[in-house]
Amino acid sequence: MDYNVMARTCPSRVVLHRIGARWTVFIINALEHGPKRFVELKTHIQGITPKVLTETLRTLERDGLIARTDYEENPPRVEYELTELGRSLLEPLRAVRHWAEAHVPEIQAANAAAAGMQPGGR
Amino acid sequence: MDYNVMARTCPSRVVLHRIGARWTVFIINALEHGPKRFVELKTHIQGITPKVLTETLRTLERDGLIARTDYEENPPRVEYELTELGRSLLEPLRAVRHWAEAHVPEIQAANAAAAGMQPGGR
Repeated sequence: MDYNVMARTCPSRVVLHRIGARWTVFIINALEHGPKRFVELKTHIQGITPKVLTETLRTLERDGLIARTDYEENPPRVEYELTELGRSLLEPLRAVRHWAEAHVPEIQAANAAAAGMQPGGR
Repeated sequence: MDYNVMARTCPSRVVLHRIGARWTVFIINALEHGPKRFVELKTHIQGITPKVLTETLRTLERDGLIARTDYEENPPRVEYELTELGRSLLEPLRAVRHWAEAHVPEIQAANAAAAGMQPGGR
């Protein structure tokens, strides 16, 4: 079957929206170099709330992009790592991250220019 | 200056969130092969509402990713096309789109497997 995100009912659209979810790219990127514990992720991704981190991790786990391992130790040790499927998403998302980090000045210049202009109609 | 999306106050984070906005990837992809009118975009990106399309186009215009040309004809003819900056985003976003279209079966299988399991705690 051919999937096409432009088609209203195509399941690939759900997948694309999931990838685009606000914090997905951060978590996938943060796990690039190996497993991390919850607190390590929270420290690495500055400003993410525990609630949002928990929810996003669960969604990514449900989608098969990350694996959660509970070592059943005391105190508890739980680690998150990318699955093979999750690793395959690293390269596309890294490209997007690098684009964002590389083009800040152009976007800021465009925003400044637009602020000095009339807002356009449709 | 080095930009890092993991840093709470880094402006690259705003850029990354903007790229990840729900419909950005669809609009950038839809303009890949040249300018399109509003109605053509709306037809191509099935299910997007006129309101959301208008808002997203304005944001992308303000960010310097697309250019809007009003030919001042009657009936009105307005076209949208990618700027050079917008074109530079094509390749990263195409990779993400292709990933989504290529991995639907794995995601669906993971979802189905997760539905048969206990929900995990943090």
